[in-house]
Amino acid sequence: MKSFISYDTNSDFSIYNIPFGVAILADDSVACVTRIGHTVIDLATLFDQGYFDKFDLEENVFEAFTLNEFISLGKEVTVPIREHIQSLLLEGSELSKDEETQKLAFHTLPNVSMQMPVHVPNYTDFYSSIEHATNVGKMFRDPENALLPNWKHIPVGYHGRASSIVVSGTPIHRPKGQSKPKDADSPIFGPSLRLDFELEMGFITNSYTELGETISTAEAEDHIFGMVLFNDWSARDIQQWEYVPLGPFLAKNFGSSISPWVVTLEALNPFRVEGPVQDPEVFSYLQYEGKKNFDINLQTILVPEEGGENVICTSNFKYMYWNMAQQLAHHTINGCNLEVGDMYASGTISGKSEDSYGSMLELTWGGTKPLKLSNGQERKFIEDNDTIIMRGWCEKDGIRVGFGEVSGKILPAK
Amino acid sequence: MKSFISYDTNSDFSIYNIPFGVAILADDSVACVTRIGHTVIDLATLFDQGYFDKFDLEENVFEAFTLNEFISLGKEVTVPIREHIQSLLLEGSELSKDEETQKLAFHTLPNVSMQMPVHVPNYTDFYSSIEHATNVGKMFRDPENALLPNWKHIPVGYHGRASSIVVSGTPIHRPKGQSKPKDADSPIFGPSLRLDFELEMGFITNSYTELGETISTAEAEDHIFGMVLFNDWSARDIQQWEYVPLGPFLAKNFGSSISPWVVTLEALNPFRVEGPVQDPEVFSYLQYEGKKNFDINLQTILVPEEGGENVICTSNFKYMYWNMAQQLAHHTINGCNLEVGDMYASGTISGKSEDSYGSMLELTWGGTKPLKLSNGQERKFIEDNDTIIMRGWCEKDGIRVGFGEVSGKILPAK
Repeated sequence: MKSFISYDTNSDFSIYNIPFGVAILADDSVACVTRIGHTVIDLATLFDQGYFDKFDLEENVFEAFTLNEFISLGKEVTVPIREHIQSLLLEGSELSKDEETQKLAFHTLPNVSMQMPVHVPNYTDFYSSIEHATNVGKMFRDPENALLPNWKHIPVGYHGRASSIVVSGTPIHRPKGQSKPKDADSPIFGPSLRLDFELEMGFITNSYTELGETISTAEAEDHIFGMVLFNDWSARDIQQWEYVPLGPFLAKNFGSSISPWVVTLEALNPFRVEGPVQDPEVFSYLQYEGKKNFDINLQTILVPEEGGENVICTSNFKYMYWNMAQQLAHHTINGCNLEVGDMYASGTISGKSEDSYGSMLELTWGGTKPLKLSNGQERKFIEDNDTIIMRGWCEKDGIRVGFGEVSGKILPAK
Repeated sequence: MKSFISYDTNSDFSIYNIPFGVAILADDSVACVTRIGHTVIDLATLFDQGYFDKFDLEENVFEAFTLNEFISLGKEVTVPIREHIQSLLLEGSELSKDEETQKLAFHTLPNVSMQMPVHVPNYTDFYSSIEHATNVGKMFRDPENALLPNWKHIPVGYHGRASSIVVSGTPIHRPKGQSKPKDADSPIFGPSLRLDFELEMGFITNSYTELGETISTAEAEDHIFGMVLFNDWSARDIQQWEYVPLGPFLAKNFGSSISPWVVTLEALNPFRVEGPVQDPEVFSYLQYEGKKNFDINLQTILVPEEGGENVICTSNFKYMYWNMAQQLAHHTINGCNLEVGDMYASGTISGKSEDSYGSMLELTWGGTKPLKLSNGQERKFIEDNDTIIMRGWCEKDGIRVGFGEVSGKILPAK
């Protein structure tokens, strides 16, 4: 496939991608958009110009502040629409000759401002990387029995805060809170001293299900519209003091950052790979057929205040022990209902090697092995005015499909 | 105060209450409503008849599927509007003589169907009863050190699932899930065998705050519109297997039930009482002035399939160790942002005496002391086709203000 819009060969946003997002455009209007290379395409204007007439939609679903309405049409509609957009962007297409519409609908990237792609009604965070769970267990519990007994039987997860999920580029203030230093008698209060990122990916659902309804692993992917990069900012000192017995709370809910472009499962299809062997065998409702893992290269970059990118982690989404279909089957086995736009994050994605660990906690082994930056500084955890950038992309047979990045700067505590 | 609408002296819905809810009316229209005795009053129709003209509202905020828009006006507007509604319902008022409007706006209870009063964007559950936390700690952890070290320093809380909060009367299917019997080598899968209620109350917020913003204990009640009864259904066997290390998940998110009438903090003002002395002293951001506890009588009733009410628990909201102002100050100390309609539940409300315990887990002490029902049956936990009803009311100086009830029937697993 070749688009009439030119882009670099290493662009995440090739003709094979066709992701969806929401942007404030040059005239301050808001619309659902897609992207090729550095060109952002206003889908609401394409709609107005008649380019989606054959789909018989009742209204312009792209003239919206979020993708939720479009997503809620379900894959029956959104998959053909994405394919249609892809065909519109090919060399020789009707749109390629329609300069008037191009003038109205095509924007170059610095002139648009990317917004939250979806309204998120519910947010769940899983804990599905065996390497991450093992590393955390070794540090905080028992090195000999790092993995808790339930871990290989259930895709452990918990509910997070939906309100504080923000789009890439939104700065985050260092949270204040209680913590208890190791040998202190009583807790202290102040800005977190062990602020961390967690390298995750999130998937977004496209349906409302009924309370009591279950979703099988075979059905699960029909309910998944697409994926984003997800930074689950975490205050380790607050977390360690507060998390027993009901889990993380203020250590996490001060902010989570996502990439603005939702990459569809269809765009990721060529990059499917086998998941790890699960032993012991899982219950039948968690068993699945086919390739449900995805080979997505992941990077985390730390940029100190004075600039300079330091790649501090190189991981891959294919390392996940539990896949998305299993996560959704588990989430609904008790009848819990889904909503359109729900966010389901993977948990920190760590690999086996030390440079693939998806958090400062693991990379510096609890602050005992500081990272060296290119400017000569060291980091045990994130400092004020550091920026954390995560990138993700797939590459195979000369085809590249990526997520761009999720970026967030830590500002001093308020 | 005396209303021209007559009601029983023991009605929760006296002229002093004026709660808010949402109902499907006889003509299938939906509107925000209030209630006196058994009379439900359609506020959208009162609005159309000009009864709120003096408030200069841009649109009929009561012509809505939820209270969110009304609540979002803030107390500056909602408090005078509630007082105005109260004055309209007094003997001798303009409305008392306007039979035409009464015919349009007044309904009797069996002819309306109460709906979810608010759309809930975020749901947090606290754990703020010292008696409950102590009982659970004794059963599951160490009887000698039942309370965890953090409990008296922080109002422990965690995020719950917003999508599965349902209104009173909605039946709930028994959840299926994994659990691990005490001496088994591996987990089992099936319908929960230890299904429980949790007697809680929830408060609802009325504002959007910015990420990074904190709310002091002095400001907190300005952000609280009102309260409801809250049944946090819990599957104890699923919970015990899944909850380490990230907290309850499928054990809770299959359903939570709330009462349909939101009772405002203003209606509860006469029933304020001192809270317990907090020792050790809490951090300054958790300190507060004035009476922040409320004397609200609570009851839980179990009705087996063949009928007959069994009062199995008699508790009181005044037992709470941590009050709502402290909960909200804690929730935002890290900059977590609030949204209009957010639900904040108290955690199980247990008192000191054995008949005041707010869950079957505590009442039967983990199933070891079954409850005897009036029909001769016993209950360790909730059985299929049992209905759980919770009631709550305040009474003082001849004034009664109450919540009505939250009721839910457990259906067999699907």
